[in-house]
This record gives sequence, structure tokens and C-alpha cells, in this order.
Amino acid sequence: MKIAIVLFEHCTALDAVGPYEVLSRWPGATVHMVGEHKGVVRTDTEMLGLHVDTTYDEIPDPDIIMVPGGYGQRDHREGSALHAWLQQADRHSTWTTSACTGSLILASAGLLTSRRATTHWLAYDDLAALGAIPASERVVFDDKYVTAAGVSAGIDMALTLAAEGLGEEMAQIMQLGLEYDPQPPFATGGPATAPQFAIDAVTAVRDLIV
Amino acid sequence: MKIAIVLFEHCTALDAVGPYEVLSRWPGATVHMVGEHKGVVRTDTEMLGLHVDTTYDEIPDPDIIMVPGGYGQRDHREGSALHAWLQQADRHSTWTTSACTGSLILASAGLLTSRRATTHWLAYDDLAALGAIPASERVVFDDKYVTAAGVSAGIDMALTLAAEGLGEEMAQIMQLGLEYDPQPPFATGGPATAPQFAIDAVTAVRDLIV
Repeated sequence: MKIAIVLFEHCTALDAVGPYEVLSRWPGATVHMVGEHKGVVRTDTEMLGLHVDTTYDEIPDPDIIMVPGGYGQRDHREGSALHAWLQQADRHSTWTTSACTGSLILASAGLLTSRRATTHWLAYDDLAALGAIPASERVVFDDKYVTAAGVSAGIDMALTLAAEGLGEEMAQIMQLGLEYDPQPPFATGGPATAPQFAIDAVTAVRDLIV
Repeated sequence: MKIAIVLFEHCTALDAVGPYEVLSRWPGATVHMVGEHKGVVRTDTEMLGLHVDTTYDEIPDPDIIMVPGGYGQRDHREGSALHAWLQQADRHSTWTTSACTGSLILASAGLLTSRRATTHWLAYDDLAALGAIPASERVVFDDKYVTAAGVSAGIDMALTLAAEGLGEEMAQIMQLGLEYDPQPPFATGGPATAPQFAIDAVTAVRDLIV
């Protein structure tokens, strides 16, 4: 069982590491941190480096693919190494997944055409423009394609995927191990409940997120 | 404003990266990923490398200190470089914080003696043995010391700290940017609500967590 989590320059750290923390505890699985070149990539805020251990051509046959977002996603359209790898690796995968604007990369590779999918709430229009059907849900399953909403939603996605793939008992064990009993300080973490000043402030820095 | 997030071999990735994702968006702050030596450390599951950019002696005066847990915490008792750095850096800090069993490192450095603090639910006894007063809460403030429960609780800790340090409006903006509107698949992420089979299964692998 091979799990490939993609890393690229200016990805969002938590998009990758939230799912990593769950998927790396999937019994019998090995997680490979995959990228174009081995070595350190800097995340979107530039203040954290994550290490690519495996190049795309070293893992043609992942069972699970996980693609993070972050504004660096804009570099991975047609002609990029990630775009080419996704198109062939997806033929092998049991599940192809994303967090945040990682779904824009999947969509641009043609993997979400006419499929229900989600992304960061700032990017629904971008997702539609790439041929998917945006859904404002936390985690969206459409056949083997599993997409998550913004950043932190990757944790919910990975645990939901674990419940699908391993059964609810194992997913509950994983959730308890990570003590994932979230108590966010505010009930305004999504656009449906957020105050207008917060929506305006996040929208103003859209280019740093999408 | 300098924020030091500590990295060490066999730390838990999400303990560090959850708070990182929040704190790296603290206006005017620079986050430094700090360790004994520059270069890559492997996290507890061995399948992810995080990069140390700054050595302890390069940052004697952080404003916020954040220490993750993971079973590697056991290497950072008296005589270690982290132990020595914490004792002096804490004299400068406005806030000294931890996620998961990172609080055991703070406690062993004498920083939590007779203070209320928390940790992963598997490690309350270890925290008490190091002189702190364990509290089974998600985030615990005692003066400038802010500790979080297991792994994922670091996100709640960092957002709560942001509300303290920057005000509730800014913290709400940060939370919305990360779309932190958690929807865990099960309501059993803590020991109070988890089924016995899950508690038994996690307890059985205690050495891989604490």
C-alpha cells in the first residue's frame, strides 16, 4: 500500500501535513512525500521547509494520491511535471484526493470534469472554471475522487477516507490517537457563519491563499 | 516579533505544523523553525522530513516559543541542548507554549512546576511526575504558559493565543482563512467520549505516541 502526498513550492503546509498525520498511521501503508525534485520545498508563507523524499517517476503506481493546495498550485497546469504524473498515476490509484486548492490541480489535469468536488471557499469559481461542480461541503466523495475544503479540512478528509478504506473502528482509533476533538475558539470558521469583516479581510488577501 | 517553533527528531509533525499554520499568519511576526542543527529532522512516523532553519543559539530572544511533542520528546531532558535553550529563552518570551507531549519537555525544564497544564491524554501521569498539575482541557493558560492537549489541539491553542495576543477579530480572520470549521467524522476524539476498544488500541501503542 503506497500513499503519495505531493509537495511543491508554495504549497500550504497544513494541507499536506494534516492528511499526513492521519495517513501515516494507516496500517501497512508507506507514505511517500513526492515532488519534482528531492530536497526541501518552501511552503506558502516561506517560513517552513518540507522535504521531498521521492520523485514522481519513482512512484508511478500509488494507491492513494493526496494533493495539497496553496498559491503554488497555480504553477501546476498543463505542461508541468505534476500535471503529467497525475494523469498517469491516477490510472493506478484507488483514491485520488486533495485538500484546499489542491482540487484545482486535479481539475486542471482533467480528473474532476463533471464531478462534484470542493476547495477553499474562496475558489469555488476557479473550480467551476476548470470543469468540476463545486459543492460547499467539508469533504466530497465522487467515485474515487475525494476533495476537502480549505486547509484544515484535509484532516477531516483523511479520517473520512480512513473510515471508508479501513472501517469505522480503525478510523476512530486513529482519531483518538490524534486527540482530534476540535474546540475552535470561534464558530465562524466557514463563510456561512463568518462575520462580514472576516470575509472581507480574507478576500483581500486572496492571492496569498488561492 | 519572533516566534520560535522547535523541531527535533521524532517530533509529531502536526503538533508543530498545526500551530505553524496559524502563527505564520500573525501580522508582523517571523516564524523560525528552530533546532539543535540546521537540516532535516524526521518526524515520529519517519515518513516526513521537516527542515530546521535556525539553531538555538541564533535565537536567544523569541517572543513566542512553541514546543511540539512526539516520542522524541524523551530525548530532551536535563543535559540536552533544548533543555538549556528553553531555560534561557523562556526568560525573554511573552508566551511559552506546547502541543501534545511538548509540555513534558517544558515541565522537565522546570517551566511548569506547580502550574496547571495539559498534554496528550495518555500522558497526564507523566506530566504530574514532572511537577505540573494536569488538566484534562483542550487548551490551558497559566500565566504566560499555554499548553494544548494531544496533536491536533495545537491548532486550537494557536488560535486561542492569537485571540489573546491580537484580539478576537484578527483571530477570527485567521480561522476563516484556514477554513477551520472542523467536522470530525466521529464524536469520539477524546478519552471522555471514546469507546473502550479505541482507548485500549491507542494505549497499546503508547510508546509510539508519548
